[in-house]
Amino acid sequence: MQTLQNDLLLKTLYQQATPRYPIWLMRQAGRFLVEYRKVREEVGSFKGLLENPEKAAEVTLQPVDILDVDAAIIFSDILVVPESMNCPYLMEEKKGPLFPNPVRDWDSLKNLYLPDVYQSNLRYTLEAIAITKHKLQGRVPLIGFCGAPWTIFAYCTEGSGSKTFSHAKRLLYLNPEFAHEFLELITQATILYLKGQIEKGVDVIQIFDTWAGILSKEDFDSWSLPYIAKICDAITEVPIIVFAKGANFSLENLNQLKCNAISLDWNIPIDIAKKQISKTTQGNLDPCLLYAPQNILIQKVNHLLEIIPENHIVNLGHGLYPDAPRENVIKLIQYVKSFFKK
Amino acid sequence: MQTLQNDLLLKTLYQQATPRYPIWLMRQAGRFLVEYRKVREEVGSFKGLLENPEKAAEVTLQPVDILDVDAAIIFSDILVVPESMNCPYLMEEKKGPLFPNPVRDWDSLKNLYLPDVYQSNLRYTLEAIAITKHKLQGRVPLIGFCGAPWTIFAYCTEGSGSKTFSHAKRLLYLNPEFAHEFLELITQATILYLKGQIEKGVDVIQIFDTWAGILSKEDFDSWSLPYIAKICDAITEVPIIVFAKGANFSLENLNQLKCNAISLDWNIPIDIAKKQISKTTQGNLDPCLLYAPQNILIQKVNHLLEIIPENHIVNLGHGLYPDAPRENVIKLIQYVKSFFKK
Repeated sequence: MQTLQNDLLLKTLYQQATPRYPIWLMRQAGRFLVEYRKVREEVGSFKGLLENPEKAAEVTLQPVDILDVDAAIIFSDILVVPESMNCPYLMEEKKGPLFPNPVRDWDSLKNLYLPDVYQSNLRYTLEAIAITKHKLQGRVPLIGFCGAPWTIFAYCTEGSGSKTFSHAKRLLYLNPEFAHEFLELITQATILYLKGQIEKGVDVIQIFDTWAGILSKEDFDSWSLPYIAKICDAITEVPIIVFAKGANFSLENLNQLKCNAISLDWNIPIDIAKKQISKTTQGNLDPCLLYAPQNILIQKVNHLLEIIPENHIVNLGHGLYPDAPRENVIKLIQYVKSFFKK
Repeated sequence: MQTLQNDLLLKTLYQQATPRYPIWLMRQAGRFLVEYRKVREEVGSFKGLLENPEKAAEVTLQPVDILDVDAAIIFSDILVVPESMNCPYLMEEKKGPLFPNPVRDWDSLKNLYLPDVYQSNLRYTLEAIAITKHKLQGRVPLIGFCGAPWTIFAYCTEGSGSKTFSHAKRLLYLNPEFAHEFLELITQATILYLKGQIEKGVDVIQIFDTWAGILSKEDFDSWSLPYIAKICDAITEVPIIVFAKGANFSLENLNQLKCNAISLDWNIPIDIAKKQISKTTQGNLDPCLLYAPQNILIQKVNHLLEIIPENHIVNLGHGLYPDAPRENVIKLIQYVKSFFKK
């Protein structure tokens, strides 16, 4: 394994002392960068970009070169996993993902299968990882990622994004055997995919449970957490960050996972979260803070850095919004990199 | 004041003993009822319906007659208040509200004013309240309502619904004086409107802070809670229920309001919420539970009723979804009405 020139993220994940906090930003490779939009336009579509390993590697590297963040995260999409299982989707401009054939019954589930990660569409992202690792030359670690099984299940059963995900949730009540079987299949496919990512060189894995927060605590603990746990148990090669957005009701249970860090949204004060989490934490900054004047932005970040303990990865509580002011993103990163621990 | 034949809701709000729990459902007068859809189609549009006092009263009474709930809630919309302040909106089918002229600067704010509640569009709802009270003949209490100032501010500045409300939130950081002045104006207009509702006979007020949950605790405590508090301080004639959806990070502060009940979403277990709330509670049931088979639905409701103390109003943690199965809604209501406290 290549030695990393910047090992702040890994050391923080392993709770080793570092002189300063590492920083990277969810969706740092994305629309808020004009350089990204240029590549995206050249390629023509979002899916065209993620199925073009050279270009996907290029936009993955942009924030490392332009923003000087402490980690790269591979440009991809959590929905490549269901696609590889024979549940394809379209990405509609401004509308989000659309599954022409939502999976809501046993007959549809029978058409799905575990992917061959090196033959299916997953190979695009794996190739992009290999190219990115080569081009990074060990400058910073590369983060791979996947969706949590519940979030993938929610999209595949609902058929699209939704405010309520009522199709997805009703299946939990109406057909629990089906739901468990589907969640298990997604879990196994995800593990295969993550093993492939690790083989190609990712240094860290982040699991995104984007729709955790539409579940009650009881349902999250029954339908999401056990499948995240299976993934964490299976992935022993690299450290894992779990981001269950909106699941602040279950921090104590998240803290029991075999993972290295819990990423937090901005709905919980960090000092309250820290009482329930012994692992490294990540995130917690409101993405809208980036719209604030720089003195306010710095004041808020400073407050966060003053009260959090050693083991924290600076990040937002959600992805960067497309209209985040570039100069403020840069200011945030520069400030955090200049803030040395006492 | 007319004596109520069914005073379960009021007694529960005043923490007086009752033989059983009262039940009503947010959006009980709405799309899930075929009888509502028929009236809505006759009138032609959502706004046409809420500006037609006779028809608005008719749909308000439907759930009392059909579902036998313990309270009526006037059919209206929280956005009638900004409309009365000279910030009109359109209600687009399947898209939600749209404000052609979002209020984002001092110049737009200068065009707004406090409404004459008896001359402006607010008169439609006030007339509907008078008609409903007459037709109810004291069978059950009538609930009036308003949006919390933060939620109204969010719609008026964003211009529409949004996943992030980034326009609204950036104003809090970029122009705090403007934000406070606008929130204050909304607060004063809301108080005038609620006084009008009380004069026409509403027995209870519910304040809906639909978008509380997109704020951090610090921002909720700064930008939403103080204006809800002003309303609670000004309305002393009838009991008040406050529903700040997603604000479970601030239950202790909500409990300090001069209100009678805190309505809860389904993201917090009731026993955890109860540790922070001495007032009456309401809600907490996941609206998706209504999709469950009836035995599961009853099991979950039974669990709730077994563990909560005396002072609870059975309701959902959000409005009824349009496709909630009618037979399950009826089953839920009948079950709660047959459940006698020990």
